[in-house]
Amino acid sequence: MRVHVQSFPADPAGPFTREQWNAVFGQNSGHDVSFGCTSDDLRAIESEIEGLLVATRGLRALLPINAPKLKIVSVSSAGVDMLAPFDWLPPGVVLLNNSGAHSVKASEFALMGLLMLANRMPQFFAAQSLGQWRPASVRTLANNRLTVVGLGAIGARCAEIASALGMHVTGVRSRPGAHPACVEVVGVEQIDRVLPHSDYLVLSLPGGNSTRHLLDRRRLELLPRGAGIVNIGRGSVLDEDALCDLLDCGKVGGAVLDVFEHEPLSEDSRVWRTPNLVVTPHVSADDPLSYNTLTLRILFDNLTAFDKGLPMPNQIDITTGSRQNK
Amino acid sequence: MRVHVQSFPADPAGPFTREQWNAVFGQNSGHDVSFGCTSDDLRAIESEIEGLLVATRGLRALLPINAPKLKIVSVSSAGVDMLAPFDWLPPGVVLLNNSGAHSVKASEFALMGLLMLANRMPQFFAAQSLGQWRPASVRTLANNRLTVVGLGAIGARCAEIASALGMHVTGVRSRPGAHPACVEVVGVEQIDRVLPHSDYLVLSLPGGNSTRHLLDRRRLELLPRGAGIVNIGRGSVLDEDALCDLLDCGKVGGAVLDVFEHEPLSEDSRVWRTPNLVVTPHVSADDPLSYNTLTLRILFDNLTAFDKGLPMPNQIDITTGSRQNK
Repeated sequence: MRVHVQSFPADPAGPFTREQWNAVFGQNSGHDVSFGCTSDDLRAIESEIEGLLVATRGLRALLPINAPKLKIVSVSSAGVDMLAPFDWLPPGVVLLNNSGAHSVKASEFALMGLLMLANRMPQFFAAQSLGQWRPASVRTLANNRLTVVGLGAIGARCAEIASALGMHVTGVRSRPGAHPACVEVVGVEQIDRVLPHSDYLVLSLPGGNSTRHLLDRRRLELLPRGAGIVNIGRGSVLDEDALCDLLDCGKVGGAVLDVFEHEPLSEDSRVWRTPNLVVTPHVSADDPLSYNTLTLRILFDNLTAFDKGLPMPNQIDITTGSRQNK
Repeated sequence: MRVHVQSFPADPAGPFTREQWNAVFGQNSGHDVSFGCTSDDLRAIESEIEGLLVATRGLRALLPINAPKLKIVSVSSAGVDMLAPFDWLPPGVVLLNNSGAHSVKASEFALMGLLMLANRMPQFFAAQSLGQWRPASVRTLANNRLTVVGLGAIGARCAEIASALGMHVTGVRSRPGAHPACVEVVGVEQIDRVLPHSDYLVLSLPGGNSTRHLLDRRRLELLPRGAGIVNIGRGSVLDEDALCDLLDCGKVGGAVLDVFEHEPLSEDSRVWRTPNLVVTPHVSADDPLSYNTLTLRILFDNLTAFDKGLPMPNQIDITTGSRQNK
């Protein structure tokens, strides 16, 4: 296939290189590849390309794409909500995400969030800033109940690690199906039943209309008193204002949020100052050192499937924003 | 055996109870047990007891112990350095620690520390306190090199979890012997050889003269630039002032310290304010919800070994402060 790899140099991982490509595809992959960073780079070969790997953040600036031979567009992110509506995608062209590239990094972040909540790190950080030695009882994660909402590549790995640490894990997913790391997996429509039994909640869902405020005030209030929440998916999944209220009154014990309804968070947002709330600036998913290589590996797997006439694992159903063949 | 369990009610785990004892030993263990909290409680049965389980923090106040039938004293901590010198222990009486009771909790804490350093949490906490959105590249632990110094129950479990997350783990221990979670295990005398190849260092050592300032300035300077350090053992193992200097100049990337040379840390200590240094008030090891039960389980295992004439796994060599039969 004639593939073009279009980088967005401002990405923390830096531009894709031929060395990275060769390390994954080998020298004789049967694919013909070119690399570019500017709009002109793409225009120069647009008429030839059949496959396009493009940095998600740089895609909007390249539209419209006029590539009559194009069959596949692969983007360098797992979430594709920022690319909706998909009217820019020529009819018949397949969209791939890079779900899987984030699972190691993001699952480590989620685990860190859970451990920080069990160990009362928000309180200890506050005490440290005052120079005050204030011991407090801290807990183990082992033997506690975790619910992972969203069992994509990231959520599934969260469940695996948490289970290995001795947590009892329940999964919530849109499609039915058991998971070996989960004691139970329920459909999204049953989430109200599992929330009251969740000491911890990890949210690992894509954005978009179908997940917007899935965790609204009513559902957040179903959690047991003192529960901990980690959100590494999209900020829109959670009613941020309701969460802040519940943290203020101590009904929710703590939260680690890496994603927000409006990013960047404005300086006057109450989120910054809500007690027992840890804020990170949307950094949970990306490990710049390995990101390009992981993204290319996922493209390789999908092109290999395409060549064999098999379903491509990262093909996106643009009506839902989720992978359709997983 | 006639056993007395002496609690120190101010412990976060609360006093030992007969329910906890029965849950571990059963109703018909063959042991005759009594419980007490005050010095008078102990005095009343001192002449009869053969075994004494005593909260480490309360022991000093009970001395001298005048118990002619005493064979075993078991303390409710893994570290026994605060009980040295051991001239209070009657000749021929065996001292047991409760090494193993902390391994789940403390290894979770160590893992949290490593994840917080990989994810630059000290920087993000500083940014949050200013209400500033400052993204920065964060890393995975996977594929990084960890050296665990001290392979007791806690260090060994750290090594296991880190290895499961994809870290390359080297162990440093006083006695030779391989460990399945470690790529390599070296003796303490070889620590200089492994420090330059350690992206992260977990210190899980007992206190006392043999480990004092094992990580001195010269050795801390052997670490690669940007390395991360987690100390969950004893503060005396590390030259705190040297570490602060190396954090100030950025040679060491970050540290999470739960233990200090002088506890509680004084309000004017530079440790509180050193950049990229996270302070917790000696809370890494204890989970109050499970602590008494775990401690009783360890006593049960040791009394069972004693009854069978086998070596007791938690027997302390008072010349070194370490377990002698492990």
